[in-house]
Amino acid sequence: MEKKIPYKIYLSEEEMPTKWYNVRADMPTKPAPLISPADGHALTLEEMNPIFCEELNKQELDNDTKYFDIPQEVLDFYRMYRPSPLVRAYFLEKELGTPAKIYYKFEGNNTSGSHKLNSSIAQAYYAKKQGLKGVTTETGAGQWGTALSMACSYFKLDCKVFMVKVSYEQKPFRREVMRTYGADVTPSPSLTTEVGKRILANHPGTGGSLGCAISEAVEAAVTTPGYRYVLGSVLNQVLLHQTVIGQEVQAALKKYDIKPDILIGCLGGGSNFGGFATPFMGEVLRGEADYKFIGVEPASCPSFTRGKFAYDFCDTGMICPLAKMYTLGSQFMPSANHAGGLRFHGISPILAQLYHDGIFEARAVEQTAVFEAAERFARVEGILPAPESSHAIRVAIDEALKCKETGEAKTIVFNLSGTGYFDMVAYQQYNDGTMSDVIPSDEAIAESLAKLPVVEEK
Amino acid sequence: MEKKIPYKIYLSEEEMPTKWYNVRADMPTKPAPLISPADGHALTLEEMNPIFCEELNKQELDNDTKYFDIPQEVLDFYRMYRPSPLVRAYFLEKELGTPAKIYYKFEGNNTSGSHKLNSSIAQAYYAKKQGLKGVTTETGAGQWGTALSMACSYFKLDCKVFMVKVSYEQKPFRREVMRTYGADVTPSPSLTTEVGKRILANHPGTGGSLGCAISEAVEAAVTTPGYRYVLGSVLNQVLLHQTVIGQEVQAALKKYDIKPDILIGCLGGGSNFGGFATPFMGEVLRGEADYKFIGVEPASCPSFTRGKFAYDFCDTGMICPLAKMYTLGSQFMPSANHAGGLRFHGISPILAQLYHDGIFEARAVEQTAVFEAAERFARVEGILPAPESSHAIRVAIDEALKCKETGEAKTIVFNLSGTGYFDMVAYQQYNDGTMSDVIPSDEAIAESLAKLPVVEEK
Repeated sequence: MEKKIPYKIYLSEEEMPTKWYNVRADMPTKPAPLISPADGHALTLEEMNPIFCEELNKQELDNDTKYFDIPQEVLDFYRMYRPSPLVRAYFLEKELGTPAKIYYKFEGNNTSGSHKLNSSIAQAYYAKKQGLKGVTTETGAGQWGTALSMACSYFKLDCKVFMVKVSYEQKPFRREVMRTYGADVTPSPSLTTEVGKRILANHPGTGGSLGCAISEAVEAAVTTPGYRYVLGSVLNQVLLHQTVIGQEVQAALKKYDIKPDILIGCLGGGSNFGGFATPFMGEVLRGEADYKFIGVEPASCPSFTRGKFAYDFCDTGMICPLAKMYTLGSQFMPSANHAGGLRFHGISPILAQLYHDGIFEARAVEQTAVFEAAERFARVEGILPAPESSHAIRVAIDEALKCKETGEAKTIVFNLSGTGYFDMVAYQQYNDGTMSDVIPSDEAIAESLAKLPVVEEK
Repeated sequence: MEKKIPYKIYLSEEEMPTKWYNVRADMPTKPAPLISPADGHALTLEEMNPIFCEELNKQELDNDTKYFDIPQEVLDFYRMYRPSPLVRAYFLEKELGTPAKIYYKFEGNNTSGSHKLNSSIAQAYYAKKQGLKGVTTETGAGQWGTALSMACSYFKLDCKVFMVKVSYEQKPFRREVMRTYGADVTPSPSLTTEVGKRILANHPGTGGSLGCAISEAVEAAVTTPGYRYVLGSVLNQVLLHQTVIGQEVQAALKKYDIKPDILIGCLGGGSNFGGFATPFMGEVLRGEADYKFIGVEPASCPSFTRGKFAYDFCDTGMICPLAKMYTLGSQFMPSANHAGGLRFHGISPILAQLYHDGIFEARAVEQTAVFEAAERFARVEGILPAPESSHAIRVAIDEALKCKETGEAKTIVFNLSGTGYFDMVAYQQYNDGTMSDVIPSDEAIAESLAKLPVVEEK
């Protein structure tokens, strides 16, 4: 007999994962390394240390260690807001009239409003341990910036945030949250860096992008003594830290003998989908289970579904190392949509390789359809979701409605990575009926891809 | 040996309370009834039914039934966001260097951002059951309005919200959240009601108050067929519904054999302090335990500490029934401070009587001291608190610091009733150093109290 499933499955603090899971150890083909833009050689630890924190670089380069111990100080901080609940979406199921069983992992119940704290606290910990004075970063929707501000405040580190200008303007209160946690916030592109000045000269009036903001943050880090650059997504280390999400989901499902059929997450740089899905992908790679994975990206910035698997710059300013990923080209400028955190031209190299190897499928969805799903979800499940996370909701609803047609009682699990409390400008546009869908033309993408760097890997 | 206390104590869904506790049944002196402004007679059910929902009126008038069953539909909704955690503030204790043990009940982990959902869903349920078309209400900080919008959306009821103008302007995004849940929101005082027009004529440019907004909402309810007025605080029924908070705290403490010494909550209309504290006050009234209770109010609107225990109008427009409470006078206009939800001239009659009987102490605190505590708390505990709730934090910190002086390891429990994500204008003023404390003069209070209605109780 099936156990009665509560509305929310909470692990006890003792049941929380104490290690991060490194999917690379289980991947038959490892993700391609970061390479030098100068001559294509794989970057060494020594070359990375001036930009990033040392211990994080070790994690970045380690394709073999399957589990990393989570430091006690980080575990302590995790207990401030974790474990997060795995919620059975009884109300959504009823609203849809679907035989599907829907669950979501809710990562938004903390002041950063998202899963981003899972990695920011780890990165701040290693920066502090290294004796650094401060860190720089970029933020899109503002969630990563908030999360890093909170982590730096906790470890008493300086925190300098370059915030994508369009988000800075749409989310005036995000800046105040970061300031409340003591951070210094600059809209990007800005005139405070050389690369910012150059981008503004070439694209006057641009709303910015994660790619631009990364360039500025890296420049600020390498030109300020005692600072390093930290990043909230894309990097291997970030996916590693985020696996607390997927491991908690595994433990919660196991408690009630639930076997998922479909696992869904939204795709920006890959941190929430990677953290949520790779522990399950590990099971598939090890031949222990079989799941369907769907990564959901915005149709306005469709890296997987319309991009190319190739080496590219992670930043617009083309000063960072190159990563092999699905990319739209580092010069691609996404339209000013509201999924700020998903407006990145590339993706995590781990996910790129896993996608290339057919482990998961990617789906692009349009903005208004996403907000329709968001509002429907909010009204029955009581949580106002982030636009980013609502991409996953859209596809979870679509899959549940398919089950309604076919009569299949599939188990669908998605990651609700954050809340939308700071996204009310977007909701207002949706409520007012002034929101539109802007999809890049084939020509625009081809033009951007034509500018991909020519790389000879060594 | 003391059990190891986790960072967060969660009850299971089975352990959640299934009844609301009515402290009136244990009070030796019952709270004074609502009376007619016309001739001072205690209002009957029949007289109240045209304004409020019938079932809620029965709860309002019932001084004898100790426990009310929570309807299954309401229990289901509670499980969407409850139980809420009781958090051991290990990080705050360390920051303060206090031997005190500090706990807080965190009621902010839901989209309304506060405890208000506990009563809104109950009230919407009874309105729906009565076959009503919609409800009207007022909201101060916007939390009650959001909570009612969510509840009405769930039960598919119309929801018309009059929002205190100063909050409406300080919190533009609150309106959008309410709209996302389908509510109609009007800044108060407005020109849409007769009483609003009158208030605007007498106080041009006023930022409004809860008292004004109540008048408008009541007028809108009684002049619209199929509508009733609902209220998020002050009334006996609201305190009743909110006792899920205190009962959960009792159960969580019991699980770990913790005996509190001091219980603290902020005071506006009384809903969060009443819901949190009255289950414990019941223990005291029954002679089963002894606790120190502290209710905290803003120095800018000091109903308990500088008001009078007397019959007064709950609304500025003087159209509602009279309640016996600690009041500054219904014509008292508090300065435009940021504790929007605490800007009410009166208080719950239950709490008024309990205070009069010496069951708890009240303390008034100033705005900048409150934000100082809020920011300190946010930086170590990771939660950005609502300005209202931060009044409780201020006094919890003060009491913990007293313990540091005396070396006493007291157990302090406070109610963190909500989050401050929509209060960033206020935080910005604090961060910018432009926030000030505005305390009403003795003359202003005396002048307001001189206008109290002369009532002959019957």
